Amino acid sequence: MYELLKKDGMAKRGTFHTVHGPIQTPVFMNVGTVAAIKGGVSTNDLKDIKCQVQLSNTYHLHVRTGDATIKKLGGLHKFMVWDRPILTDSGGFQVFSLAALRKIKEEGVYFSSHIDGHKIFMGPEESMQIQSNLSSTIAMAFDECPPIPATRKYVIDSVDRTTRWLERCRKELTRLNSLESTINNRQMLFGINQGGIYDDLRIEHAKVIGDMNLDGYAIGGLAVGESHDEMYRILESTVPYMPENKPTYLMGVGTPENILEAVERGVDFFDCVYPTRNGRHGHVYTNHGKMNIYNAKFELDERPIEEGCGCEACKTYSRAYIRHLMKAKEMLGMRLCVMHNLYFYNTMMEEIRDAIEKGVYQAYKKAKIDGMNIK
Amino acid sequence: MYELLKKDGMAKRGTFHTVHGPIQTPVFMNVGTVAAIKGGVSTNDLKDIKCQVQLSNTYHLHVRTGDATIKKLGGLHKFMVWDRPILTDSGGFQVFSLAALRKIKEEGVYFSSHIDGHKIFMGPEESMQIQSNLSSTIAMAFDECPPIPATRKYVIDSVDRTTRWLERCRKELTRLNSLESTINNRQMLFGINQGGIYDDLRIEHAKVIGDMNLDGYAIGGLAVGESHDEMYRILESTVPYMPENKPTYLMGVGTPENILEAVERGVDFFDCVYPTRNGRHGHVYTNHGKMNIYNAKFELDERPIEEGCGCEACKTYSRAYIRHLMKAKEMLGMRLCVMHNLYFYNTMMEEIRDAIEKGVYQAYKKAKIDGMNIK
Repeated sequence: MYELLKKDGMAKRGTFHTVHGPIQTPVFMNVGTVAAIKGGVSTNDLKDIKCQVQLSNTYHLHVRTGDATIKKLGGLHKFMVWDRPILTDSGGFQVFSLAALRKIKEEGVYFSSHIDGHKIFMGPEESMQIQSNLSSTIAMAFDECPPIPATRKYVIDSVDRTTRWLERCRKELTRLNSLESTINNRQMLFGINQGGIYDDLRIEHAKVIGDMNLDGYAIGGLAVGESHDEMYRILESTVPYMPENKPTYLMGVGTPENILEAVERGVDFFDCVYPTRNGRHGHVYTNHGKMNIYNAKFELDERPIEEGCGCEACKTYSRAYIRHLMKAKEMLGMRLCVMHNLYFYNTMMEEIRDAIEKGVYQAYKKAKIDGMNIK
Repeated sequence: MYELLKKDGMAKRGTFHTVHGPIQTPVFMNVGTVAAIKGGVSTNDLKDIKCQVQLSNTYHLHVRTGDATIKKLGGLHKFMVWDRPILTDSGGFQVFSLAALRKIKEEGVYFSSHIDGHKIFMGPEESMQIQSNLSSTIAMAFDECPPIPATRKYVIDSVDRTTRWLERCRKELTRLNSLESTINNRQMLFGINQGGIYDDLRIEHAKVIGDMNLDGYAIGGLAVGESHDEMYRILESTVPYMPENKPTYLMGVGTPENILEAVERGVDFFDCVYPTRNGRHGHVYTNHGKMNIYNAKFELDERPIEEGCGCEACKTYSRAYIRHLMKAKEMLGMRLCVMHNLYFYNTMMEEIRDAIEKGVYQAYKKAKIDGMNIK
């Protein structure tokens, strides 16, 4: 499924083939939590801003509208009108970060909905069932995401449970894919590496799940409070023990600089709410650093957010107009900032792929980061 | 400037020539209060939904961002990136409906900003100066909009003052248009007919302002609480006394049915927040009546809002998906509903123009209203 086209140092340039078409990696997945990109961006718009693959949330879609309803409507692709790949997370991270009153047991997690407080149980089988109903291209394994910091003892127990849960996920998804009523019988499964900031636990776990021959592997439990240096160190120690002939996905990461550093350490897939969330708050990315569009110095600035950018915001509107929209709390301001930010991320991924192909990744990365750090 | 192409009963089909291109009438002006259509709709989108002319608010733009800033940025057209006509209202209606602590004097109105409470004075000259700074295609006269009901005595005094203010508006706009620093030296002025629900006062005022040979004439002070029948009666009594060779604009109106009835009584121009405001609340217009997209019966409805509609929402997305978006409070839901509603209004105006040209307006109107009343 994963074709490794080129390596430049540890950086990988690949093509991941899916039932919904190929994904060129490294890739940034655009986050549409509840089957929509926040900021009024449609799936039509996503194609204009170079999105290859979209990510939706199992937990959110289960508690609102419901995966059973979405299955009746033909699955997420038909529901959102999107014919390219979709990855669904397992719900694990949201259960641990959003839900109230959670109780972790061997069978799974008991918790209360963040919408109306009703009691829900989710274990590996339930997560696979929901993701099968949603019929995403790639399902993520249901894991426990331990907090950072956590004791070594806690992390060891948690990682062991995550491994047992992964076996149950694989078994259940194999069963679901064999059912005639399943919309996407070729749904893929990515396992998730855990281990907190303990390199030896991470490596050990990477080896164990690597032997399971899954469709891809994620590194979970990072970007939850550790330092950037700790994150880079863990990537350096762990990625070499993950299958090179499978995609590597760093969950929930990150800033443009985080992505550039992680690609250098062998990561293929990324996702993060930064470009959408920052866009909604008027923080926009450029090759000369992040700008706060509310800043008074943009009041009379007739330039686009970034000269030469091909997004709708930059092709048409000025910083002065977008600042006005944000200050007047007009939705259009958020929409334009979000579209710009996603275009910026997706364009950076294009540049990254190009630089790896040309074998100039290190030089590209340095120039890009230096540019963004100009103040 | 106004070319009367065809009459069908009292219904007029015309072309209004402006410095920003022609307007085919009858026309619905799409309301962009603070230089943006609420619901995340851009000027690029407006072209897709058949908008001919956009309306912005003098009062809102004066108190936030400021007309002086917009002038420095080249005026509203350049600011919003819109090359078709823009009408600006005079600020009068907002001063009377939004502002606190207002005091009406012969020279104008003293009031407090609804944003930060600071004291503002606006009279005919100030309104013209602001609209000249905004450099709209059409400026509206600064008038007083008396409440309904109001005593005959109050209305007589108010109408007389509005006439005196209109003379001052004309004089000031003539001066402004002669200045070299003015962006749009061919800015036009529409006078506003007032008179509450007193037909004789309306008719008398229509004659007085009709003699002033302005670029167009509006009927103001309606759609403020009177019944539909009262509004139609006033149109029937007043419009015949307004110049037929000038456009007639019914301010702030209204529902599709209101527009259809008013066209029959000779009205050319309309504006209303209904399609945008209703869209943001999930109320969408169709040829079979208004739908509340939140309704549970749409949960599994895979049809578009309206079969055959050419708007982005209907060409791509299902009622079920849009309902999901609205329930999840996703901006995209509002954007799709607003775009559909504006497309519905603008398409209805196309049909109206076509029916008048063919001399079948009465039959068209009856069929359209009957269709919308099917439950």
